[in-house]
Amino acid sequence: MTMAKRDTYTPDSLLAVAVEVFNERGYDGTSMEHLSQAAGISKSSIYHHVRGKEELLERAVGRALEGLFAILDEPGAVRGRAIERLEFVTRRTTQVLMAELPYVTLLLRVRGNTRTERLALARRREFDQRMAGLLTAAVAEGDLRADMDVKLATRLLFGMINSLVEWYRPGAGARADEEVAAAVVRLAFDGLRT
Amino acid sequence: MTMAKRDTYTPDSLLAVAVEVFNERGYDGTSMEHLSQAAGISKSSIYHHVRGKEELLERAVGRALEGLFAILDEPGAVRGRAIERLEFVTRRTTQVLMAELPYVTLLLRVRGNTRTERLALARRREFDQRMAGLLTAAVAEGDLRADMDVKLATRLLFGMINSLVEWYRPGAGARADEEVAAAVVRLAFDGLRT
Repeated sequence: MTMAKRDTYTPDSLLAVAVEVFNERGYDGTSMEHLSQAAGISKSSIYHHVRGKEELLERAVGRALEGLFAILDEPGAVRGRAIERLEFVTRRTTQVLMAELPYVTLLLRVRGNTRTERLALARRREFDQRMAGLLTAAVAEGDLRADMDVKLATRLLFGMINSLVEWYRPGAGARADEEVAAAVVRLAFDGLRT
Repeated sequence: MTMAKRDTYTPDSLLAVAVEVFNERGYDGTSMEHLSQAAGISKSSIYHHVRGKEELLERAVGRALEGLFAILDEPGAVRGRAIERLEFVTRRTTQVLMAELPYVTLLLRVRGNTRTERLALARRREFDQRMAGLLTAAVAEGDLRADMDVKLATRLLFGMINSLVEWYRPGAGARADEEVAAAVVRLAFDGLRT
């Protein structure tokens, strides 16, 4: 039995704790009891903030998805040649992943067992399709190699970006983060070869 | 209570069942009871084959690691310029991942809670370092861009290759598999841009 502390949580700070537990134990493996223990407040205090763990999941993946979809409305994503927009979205997606690491990590681990998870998967697919659309447009404009299946290229591009959740650790500073984003763009568009 | 079937397992066929269960439930979340249920034979029948679940894990990740390390001894990995060897290892690693999908998937999910897992992680790091060594050599020979940190490039390259465990599904045929391996090599070395 842990000593319950006074509930001074804001929606955001409680969410941060919940996301940490979800990423550690898996969403399915997390109970309200686990959340209560991690937050150091009673279950009824948590219920004061949210209806249950699915609402926490919804907010967490919502935060990740909002961050990602907002990229698509930025000027760099809507103006110019498709290849420039694609590069922009690739760089920004990498940056949002680093800035919102626990939330995007959770989003990428969603399985589809609940309605919230299925909605999140559908939104992820929508984002992938927007990216695939940019690739198709860039091929049509002659800026992207035509000898690669667009669906396959999209998967490999996201595979590279999303791998960051496995090895990226924040705290190395803005310059180091910029180097990571630049490396993703360089590798994806120009390759390793000189 | 499931009806126990006659134990006609070979070491390989029992391993295949175990790996499927490990990948589904996670190694930590798998008990001998789960394995017994999935295999349809009693726990004592399983103990006739192996000392316990850690031996099954050891064999499974051993199979993945053998497949991967064998690449480094193939002629294409030991002869020629570093860039050619690097391309060869990239293509072959992708092919081995597809051919040994459940075993490599398990290897990539190993956490390090047991001695077997820690040994597997150490061997993975060794493989990554061999790859990083090839990248360093290719930069020195002037064939690989020098404006990217080698450790970062290695991570992104493996990030792209290893992402296959998330989306690749076998059975599309040898030509489709060849297209995947070729796409990985093309994207990694020449990039998406024309």
